Amino acid sequence: MAQLVVRTAGESHGPAVITLIEGLPAGLAVDAARIDADLARRQSGYGRGRRQTIEKDRVEVLAGVRHGRTIPGPVVLVIRNRDARLEECPEVRRPRPGHADLAGALKYLDPDMRNILERASARETAGRVAAGSLAKMLLAEFGTDVLAYVTRIGPVAAVVPTDLAERRRRRDASDLLVPDPGAEPAMKAAIRAAGEAGDTLGGLIECVAMGVPPGLGSHVQWTEKLDGRLARAVMSIQAIKAVEIGLGMAVAERTGSQVHDPIAYDPKARDTAGLGYVRPTNNAGGIEGGMTNGQPVVLVAAMKPIPTLRQPLASVDIKTKQPETAVHERSDVCAVPAASVVVEAAVATELAAAMVEKFGGDSVAQMKAAYEAWRRAAREL
Amino acid sequence: MAQLVVRTAGESHGPAVITLIEGLPAGLAVDAARIDADLARRQSGYGRGRRQTIEKDRVEVLAGVRHGRTIPGPVVLVIRNRDARLEECPEVRRPRPGHADLAGALKYLDPDMRNILERASARETAGRVAAGSLAKMLLAEFGTDVLAYVTRIGPVAAVVPTDLAERRRRRDASDLLVPDPGAEPAMKAAIRAAGEAGDTLGGLIECVAMGVPPGLGSHVQWTEKLDGRLARAVMSIQAIKAVEIGLGMAVAERTGSQVHDPIAYDPKARDTAGLGYVRPTNNAGGIEGGMTNGQPVVLVAAMKPIPTLRQPLASVDIKTKQPETAVHERSDVCAVPAASVVVEAAVATELAAAMVEKFGGDSVAQMKAAYEAWRRAAREL
Amino acid sequence: MAQLVVRTAGESHGPAVITLIEGLPAGLAVDAARIDADLARRQSGYGRGRRQTIEKDRVEVLAGVRHGRTIPGPVVLVIRNRDARLEECPEVRRPRPGHADLAGALKYLDPDMRNILERASARETAGRVAAGSLAKMLLAEFGTDVLAYVTRIGPVAAVVPTDLAERRRRRDASDLLVPDPGAEPAMKAAIRAAGEAGDTLGGLIECVAMGVPPGLGSHVQWTEKLDGRLARAVMSIQAIKAVEIGLGMAVAERTGSQVHDPIAYDPKARDTAGLGYVRPTNNAGGIEGGMTNGQPVVLVAAMKPIPTLRQPLASVDIKTKQPETAVHERSDVCAVPAASVVVEAAVATELAAAMVEKFGGDSVAQMKAAYEAWRRAAREL
Amino acid sequence: MAQLVVRTAGESHGPAVITLIEGLPAGLAVDAARIDADLARRQSGYGRGRRQTIEKDRVEVLAGVRHGRTIPGPVVLVIRNRDARLEECPEVRRPRPGHADLAGALKYLDPDMRNILERASARETAGRVAAGSLAKMLLAEFGTDVLAYVTRIGPVAAVVPTDLAERRRRRDASDLLVPDPGAEPAMKAAIRAAGEAGDTLGGLIECVAMGVPPGLGSHVQWTEKLDGRLARAVMSIQAIKAVEIGLGMAVAERTGSQVHDPIAYDPKARDTAGLGYVRPTNNAGGIEGGMTNGQPVVLVAAMKPIPTLRQPLASVDIKTKQPETAVHERSDVCAVPAASVVVEAAVATELAAAMVEKFGGDSVAQMKAAYEAWRRAAREL
Repeated sequence: MAQLVVRTAGESHGPAVITLIEGLPAGLAVDAARIDADLARRQSGYGRGRRQTIEKDRVEVLAGVRHGRTIPGPVVLVIRNRDARLEECPEVRRPRPGHADLAGALKYLDPDMRNILERASARETAGRVAAGSLAKMLLAEFGTDVLAYVTRIGPVAAVVPTDLAERRRRRDASDLLVPDPGAEPAMKAAIRAAGEAGDTLGGLIECVAMGVPPGLGSHVQWTEKLDGRLARAVMSIQAIKAVEIGLGMAVAERTGSQVHDPIAYDPKARDTAGLGYVRPTNNAGGIEGGMTNGQPVVLVAAMKPIPTLRQPLASVDIKTKQPETAVHERSDVCAVPAASVVVEAAVATELAAAMVEKFGGDSVAQMKAAYEAWRRAAREL
Repeated sequence: MAQLVVRTAGESHGPAVITLIEGLPAGLAVDAARIDADLARRQSGYGRGRRQTIEKDRVEVLAGVRHGRTIPGPVVLVIRNRDARLEECPEVRRPRPGHADLAGALKYLDPDMRNILERASARETAGRVAAGSLAKMLLAEFGTDVLAYVTRIGPVAAVVPTDLAERRRRRDASDLLVPDPGAEPAMKAAIRAAGEAGDTLGGLIECVAMGVPPGLGSHVQWTEKLDGRLARAVMSIQAIKAVEIGLGMAVAERTGSQVHDPIAYDPKARDTAGLGYVRPTNNAGGIEGGMTNGQPVVLVAAMKPIPTLRQPLASVDIKTKQPETAVHERSDVCAVPAASVVVEAAVATELAAAMVEKFGGDSVAQMKAAYEAWRRAAREL
Repeated sequence: MAQLVVRTAGESHGPAVITLIEGLPAGLAVDAARIDADLARRQSGYGRGRRQTIEKDRVEVLAGVRHGRTIPGPVVLVIRNRDARLEECPEVRRPRPGHADLAGALKYLDPDMRNILERASARETAGRVAAGSLAKMLLAEFGTDVLAYVTRIGPVAAVVPTDLAERRRRRDASDLLVPDPGAEPAMKAAIRAAGEAGDTLGGLIECVAMGVPPGLGSHVQWTEKLDGRLARAVMSIQAIKAVEIGLGMAVAERTGSQVHDPIAYDPKARDTAGLGYVRPTNNAGGIEGGMTNGQPVVLVAAMKPIPTLRQPLASVDIKTKQPETAVHERSDVCAVPAASVVVEAAVATELAAAMVEKFGGDSVAQMKAAYEAWRRAAREL
Repeated sequence: MAQLVVRTAGESHGPAVITLIEGLPAGLAVDAARIDADLARRQSGYGRGRRQTIEKDRVEVLAGVRHGRTIPGPVVLVIRNRDARLEECPEVRRPRPGHADLAGALKYLDPDMRNILERASARETAGRVAAGSLAKMLLAEFGTDVLAYVTRIGPVAAVVPTDLAERRRRRDASDLLVPDPGAEPAMKAAIRAAGEAGDTLGGLIECVAMGVPPGLGSHVQWTEKLDGRLARAVMSIQAIKAVEIGLGMAVAERTGSQVHDPIAYDPKARDTAGLGYVRPTNNAGGIEGGMTNGQPVVLVAAMKPIPTLRQPLASVDIKTKQPETAVHERSDVCAVPAASVVVEAAVATELAAAMVEKFGGDSVAQMKAAYEAWRRAAREL
């Protein structure tokens, strides 16, 4: 099936988080250590709570891989929960503002919101990160590279270097996955201050995909437009409340001549992703008409502060309807670095899906041949 | 099938724009005049070009309705194009920045970008507006109401009244669908100035859905989260570059205690959508954990300026690769009011789809019975 | 989207039957006359009633085609109903055995079964035939050819010639689409006799697809297996009650050594669909493990007699629950020839969908390049 | 999501067979022992090879269940393979006739058919059986019961008692899951004889679903018709080559008056699944117009003999193209009893999916309320 489908399953305190991935081409080299590295990155970050320390996620490949390569069939990845005590976890009757609790209780007619929060938990994103690692392995076969990092934590904004390699280096060297060593101390101070006040912080995440061929996604149907699909993938991540592509919100205030990216042709750039078409600006963020245009895909996501506060918010007991403070389950102050890893995974997954749709997907060999044949034709248009 | 599916078809200069809607419950009263009213609203707005004047859209119901009500089966709506001369339209070889042209030519290996732009055109949104009208008719059966309006055009921001009925009244009285008569003159002046400079303007659109029951969407799988689905629906609209839910981008700078909406219970509100649960703020924009929480759903979209400028942008001839200015197909200066009608339709369609998923959909009668049974149980939880 | 999706819409006495086809590659030559020829074949056949004479179906292409070729975007085909008087058609309260009437009334809670039968009618199959014509045009680009014909009408069985070209010639020369001129007189006599008795006849339809490349469909997930998908496509045709692939029912009585088709390799056959692999028998009907194996795909469908009899069957009035005879809406005696055209369309559509999935689908040019690249590699395995 | 989706994963000699089930309503009591009982039934049967003895399947619930009931979220079931040595299994270069081997090698461009057969293996059906057990638990909440049994093995046909309870008793007492103790000795003798000759046997499987409410499935779109969906589900089972509904193939030879089931109304039957509508015959097999009609759903599947013979069939080496005998992986003589358990699971899964679509699916409580409300209205139509 030339369609890449990713489903996750599992509860926060259940036996495991499980990811099922269908539609990967056969023959893709799978490096479990790289999945584990992404999982470790998701657990890192200044300002994380105790649970991240005890988990130490490791992926187990339960299906779809033989001799280190995908074979035809679904891939199943399992990440065991160390803190697996679902049957012992207490009932939850006081919904936490900012969480799925209240909406879920009413939807599913279940006053024990334990049954909601276990699945709604951000623990689920470990499964999405694992899928994203596979997606990045596939994208790498086509020279496409995805990079997400933190650009703001609460009141403190980062200044991002233009050079992408430098951006990655700085991110990888940062506790907070911020490519701006100058901003990091102020960010940590802000996290510390919020923590001491029993409060939490959100922030901004930027994601850039380089080497993306033009023509991924499609303009022909609203459900196929890549900007829409990226927005769904990123907005569906726990705590994300806004998604911008390219200039994003700023397009509203500028004129057309300030926004649109002129088109030029440079034969020296014929072998790049853009196939020779160059743009002095990239305000479109690499997407025009619901398709990639050969320029880097650029996306920003805004993350809200963690809703579980040490100083709990006002709530009610769902049975008695009497005022209570919300249950307090977790103690992180800031999860923006972790969420940046999930954003990277979500964007990579969506781009890999679009790649599989365009170039077929039975095997990496067939897919590469289709890609090369298309590329030659596109260059000679 | 308890799933509402909307597909559009048709080219800008083809015979018609067509919408196919599957999964509406049978027995829904269909008022074609209300569809036409929404289509007229899409065509209105200060700063629109000649084409809007000649079109005068009228919907023809080709399938799925008998005696004024839906019967089981797909609904097909057809909006004829007055300017239907697809076979005569000239070839397009100079891609327009900000449009699908270049990406589409490379994707589909077709140097005549007429074959791309005809389908990529915002003319397609007439089909989405027609679907949205039906969705609003279904939502109205459950007391849900969707309202979108313009809150910024280029440099000029509107101030929106708190009262929703007043908001609607002002919007309906405005040439620009702006619920702020004070801002309208400045907005019109900005449009005039941009037009005189051969330039274009974008803006902001806000959409509010009232009377939304809690529990639409789901937290259980990333593809089912309602915030993600709304983001896809809105970001897929031509020229939208950012989507915010609730506070949106602003969540990044505030602390948790400033963002999350405390939960209280007020028995006097038992018969509202929120089933008695009240929130002093609605920073979440009515969605927590990927589900509606009983509060109004609030969403903002940023629209870029129209990319076809009278002062055309730099481009190239796709065959010769020599510099040229972009083709100029259309002369609107500002389409933000029109886009607001599309945003309203997209949000209504997604909410109606979520409603059908939750309450089944064979017939309005069965759906209402399921809704009432759930509502009683949820209230007594 | 590398996925071919076909949806039909429209009521029997509504304005039109509509087909929406998404996922066809761009650049496919569309010959409307060939669609009309298939539609005419669907209306032909000895033993058909008055309505087939008045209809004279003609397709109108409403979207997706320019200058005689598909462009990127959905194709919409419209077949107007000459007998379009949906609003005047009388209520139906006496369900007809063998039809959707009773089940539909109970499902949709609607005692007027007019609202069910209008969509359940075999008139809908005109839309599927139109889609099948397009599918055959795509398959022809890859040397794949689909042929269906009648092999039994009631008590009379046909003897089918081995040679496929001869089979097609005979079918095309036959009023009943039976490739056996010897059997035709007895078949017509049987139809006459049934008609005189106020009764109806069913029969058998065989469908053969030649030149099918190996590897369409997939073994990896039950929903992707091509035999399952073909069975769904054919069993979903009105009045079909059984589907066999290859030997079909007969596999139950034979031993393994009598059923399975030995594999040999013949270098002289390297350029055929089978890529050199030859089988002395084709009991598998061209499908092993849910995939085509390079041999012809062979399928048989059993059609029940038309359920609307001139001598109506016992029924009840759905309001009074009192015994009545069933409503009599239509007067055909035997529709097996017509159904054979629908089976051909359904099989062609499913094969074209599998082809698009395997070889990508943005443009015929890209698809052919991908196909050729794969074929070379498969031959050199 | 009011849609029940079942995906399986895993290789025959991989760590496990995995089933992911989405869309089950919350609150469904899950009895793992009943899943294990169905798995044991799948492994039973006279004429099975060594592997069935060593496997002793046991299900592990990895996600979606808490305190013995489903919670909102996907259910993941894992069945560990005892013979898990995927990395050690030898390469396969000689494709086995009747298997996925050759088609898969060409499709995926992989000469080592180990990479195909591991996923194509009937071992996968353990996952479908596990899903079917859950589906039966859901159906039981609505009084629907599914029963499959063997009615023929090679040359020997069974005679099935009319009484359904007796049918089940006899099946459960039979080594071969044949509800005819008189036929069993001849069947066993046939299996023994085939085994001694190094050959294999197929057979017929019948499946009956009782207590099915009318109106499951739909007539409105070909992909939604329940007969088509059942045909896909059953034809996709390994080795099934034909599917009949009701009279099946026999409809081709009879007249309309002999085929269609008259409709009567009996107030004493108002509380049965048929809501008072009774039919003297059930030639339709409980499905008219793509929907259940309140009568038992009856389906027959034909299974081919196991394609791996002890006396191997002719094949070739895929690299050298030289004649060889096929690889011999497994030693069962007859797997019809096992396949009958899979057919039961497939039919149950499809019916449960149709039930979820019609009656919503957030929670069993909501679903039952919707079902009862509909039932009352349907009875009073």
